[in-house]
Amino acid sequence: MTKQDKILIVGAGLCGSLLALRLAQRGYKIEVYESRPDLRKVDISAGRSINLALSDRGLKSLRLAGVEEQAKALCIPMYGRLIHDIEGNTFASNYSGRTGEYINSVSRQDLNALLLDEAEKHENVNIHFNTKCTRIDIENTVAHFKSYKTDEEFSVNPDIIFGADGAGSILRKSYELERKFLFSYSQDYLTHGYKELEIPADKLGNHQISKDHLHIWPRGEYMLIALPNLDGSFTVTLFLSYEEGKFNFENLTTEEEVTHFFETQFPDALALIPNIKDEFFNNPTGALGTVKCSPWMYKNKTLIIGDAAHAIVPFYGQGMNASFEDVAVFDGVLERFEDDWEQIFKTYQQERKKDTDAIADLAVDNYYEMRDHVANPLFKQKRKLEMDLEEKFPESYYSKYSMVTFNEDIGYNEAMKKGRAQDKALLNLIADAEVSTSENMSAQELEIVLNKVNHETKEILTEDKIAGLK
Amino acid sequence: MTKQDKILIVGAGLCGSLLALRLAQRGYKIEVYESRPDLRKVDISAGRSINLALSDRGLKSLRLAGVEEQAKALCIPMYGRLIHDIEGNTFASNYSGRTGEYINSVSRQDLNALLLDEAEKHENVNIHFNTKCTRIDIENTVAHFKSYKTDEEFSVNPDIIFGADGAGSILRKSYELERKFLFSYSQDYLTHGYKELEIPADKLGNHQISKDHLHIWPRGEYMLIALPNLDGSFTVTLFLSYEEGKFNFENLTTEEEVTHFFETQFPDALALIPNIKDEFFNNPTGALGTVKCSPWMYKNKTLIIGDAAHAIVPFYGQGMNASFEDVAVFDGVLERFEDDWEQIFKTYQQERKKDTDAIADLAVDNYYEMRDHVANPLFKQKRKLEMDLEEKFPESYYSKYSMVTFNEDIGYNEAMKKGRAQDKALLNLIADAEVSTSENMSAQELEIVLNKVNHETKEILTEDKIAGLK
Repeated sequence: MTKQDKILIVGAGLCGSLLALRLAQRGYKIEVYESRPDLRKVDISAGRSINLALSDRGLKSLRLAGVEEQAKALCIPMYGRLIHDIEGNTFASNYSGRTGEYINSVSRQDLNALLLDEAEKHENVNIHFNTKCTRIDIENTVAHFKSYKTDEEFSVNPDIIFGADGAGSILRKSYELERKFLFSYSQDYLTHGYKELEIPADKLGNHQISKDHLHIWPRGEYMLIALPNLDGSFTVTLFLSYEEGKFNFENLTTEEEVTHFFETQFPDALALIPNIKDEFFNNPTGALGTVKCSPWMYKNKTLIIGDAAHAIVPFYGQGMNASFEDVAVFDGVLERFEDDWEQIFKTYQQERKKDTDAIADLAVDNYYEMRDHVANPLFKQKRKLEMDLEEKFPESYYSKYSMVTFNEDIGYNEAMKKGRAQDKALLNLIADAEVSTSENMSAQELEIVLNKVNHETKEILTEDKIAGLK
Repeated sequence: MTKQDKILIVGAGLCGSLLALRLAQRGYKIEVYESRPDLRKVDISAGRSINLALSDRGLKSLRLAGVEEQAKALCIPMYGRLIHDIEGNTFASNYSGRTGEYINSVSRQDLNALLLDEAEKHENVNIHFNTKCTRIDIENTVAHFKSYKTDEEFSVNPDIIFGADGAGSILRKSYELERKFLFSYSQDYLTHGYKELEIPADKLGNHQISKDHLHIWPRGEYMLIALPNLDGSFTVTLFLSYEEGKFNFENLTTEEEVTHFFETQFPDALALIPNIKDEFFNNPTGALGTVKCSPWMYKNKTLIIGDAAHAIVPFYGQGMNASFEDVAVFDGVLERFEDDWEQIFKTYQQERKKDTDAIADLAVDNYYEMRDHVANPLFKQKRKLEMDLEEKFPESYYSKYSMVTFNEDIGYNEAMKKGRAQDKALLNLIADAEVSTSENMSAQELEIVLNKVNHETKEILTEDKIAGLK
């Protein structure tokens, strides 16, 4: 079942390596070029987020490639958020009222290594590390490279090129700069950047705070989050404005200022981060940006996929999941159209773009939700009610978060539309005291709430539709 | 009252020349560089839209510079849309139910010439034509130029540089390419392009169709519009997909195909466009794009303004008005902060960006409204009701169109938010038969409608606010 077309993939990150694995399983001859060293041999985590959230959409795609169980072995389940207030009190907010619905903290490096190992088991896959793609001539389907080892420059002329080369994609830049067609493109930065810190394991190698949660210290203008690692440590991320507000990356320039900031804003976290001063000043400050663009393909020859086509901010924990889902959606289209690449690329974008646009917007929404709303009383009442509804009616109630995170059978766009309407319905019903939010409601009382929420959600969707004259 | 700071403006188009005039009136020393020849001496209209809609926001800014009356002498009032269906029937849809509210068709060239004349009357203004800005070094505030007349290359190092150089702004490109800061940027193309055609004057030099209207031939997938010129002609614009649908720019390649397209879709217009074949194949096909970006300034030295900062699609007739309003808003900020340029630029963007973002979105909305919704029965009922409300309650009812177009005292953003909520309220009230849409309603009946619309609009805004947890 060897295929004729020679495929070149730029990038052996999470998306590129899963794509290589899946296309190899379909019998294509694959050459993968990666600018970084082989992460199975060198630690290259610096400056990129160390652990990531893996959830159902990502798992579905890993399952398609036969590596779900191996991936799961690398995972730490997180069942909800544990929110830390400024006095050090915590309260938990589950991700779902159903049992068995949780997200997973996973090491980027471990998961990527697994995918590279699996891809390389196929003799029709070659992965070249330390080889930088410098330019792609999209008209002639020629990719130019430079080897970091030998300094040699060379070019490759395959049948198909995939750009799985992340947010700074060279293939996407070729689309932009070669001006062969009208290329719609946006890069949108948040006013905040991020910096990674560490809560180490205790002396016995155990986690110092609950490893069953994603920890959040929401403070409105800034926040801290922490995800557990298998070695007992937590990777902590500070999200802070570059230049606005009382505290920002620009004005926190001395150890005293940094200590004062953490002492007053995150005292309980500070106690757990021994190397705060070193880490704050030595770790890079990362930017938080969203990239959207269209079209993703040029003729029947090149396609951008994963972050290269749709980089998103990390606040929904969906970046990797969306990129993995790209591979699954692409695989489905490939199945339907065989080797008609023009049709495949076109159909893939038609089916997929509305969903990646939606998760990009949802991720920005969650930035405000995490740093601010999670501490808002109305929001807390809503989440509590949603957990009760999911627990009592596991087959019929799904929060927006559940639709996005645990319902891989509906697209992000549908989840966003339905979920936003449902959130609006719930928040307004609670604000107008039209539904009860008391503790320990009976099944009957909850059913009344469910019916009201469903009715209002439907109304909202209908009214929006009429307003859009659709 | 001569000011110390030397100001360089790139671009002597509508925005650049009004800005030069206004800053000259404030006593600054201004040098303006324009790549095109002096449009008062050469006809350079080719490829750019020949006439434009001038309305209250633009007029307010011209008034500020003391040239409103002279501009008005160049205007042809258009009181509403005249919609042509495929059978050649027409129906009128006024822009406002109030008397004295109308938009104006004006020649780009005539208006620009007026502004250049007025600017040049100030001895502290020099305008250099045929001089292309090739690059701007934003770190050192140096603009590089090439003279098209002498081929000479030179550079200028003023105190302040304004980029009023349109959608393809060199200053904006410098922001993007120099990477001194995180530059959020988007360019978004519609799937449709446009082509200009002409309905000439009749033998007596008169307009062949009503000059009191903006004409629209809406056909869903494509449309034709026409605006009157002072010489009795109309400039007609065809909006058509590049490559989608039965008819598109890609597949209309022969005279027979073009004739067939117009005969079947726009028969009454075709009868008035004698040179259709020449014009269709010789006039350029223009792209329709939206540009948004941030920040607009770099430190206290450079600022992009007008289309350079926010290019929008033409469907709300607000492109020029928004650029002129930029000058008025900027002038107000300048008044408050004198020569503190960093504060001026920062405050200007803070106050202005939400409004230019809003008009960009409204203009895209109107693309769908004009090509499609105007022929929709529900939409027609709504417009009819709005005209009645505006006529009967001129002091208390303003449609979204009126708020955007005739209410220069409220910003685009407020007009958009209130207007969208009001549209939604009206459309849903009509769809649910909760308000009457019968002919000749009494004042009392209309007042009931008004109260219902106001109540529903308020509800919608409140519910949105609660859903946004603001």
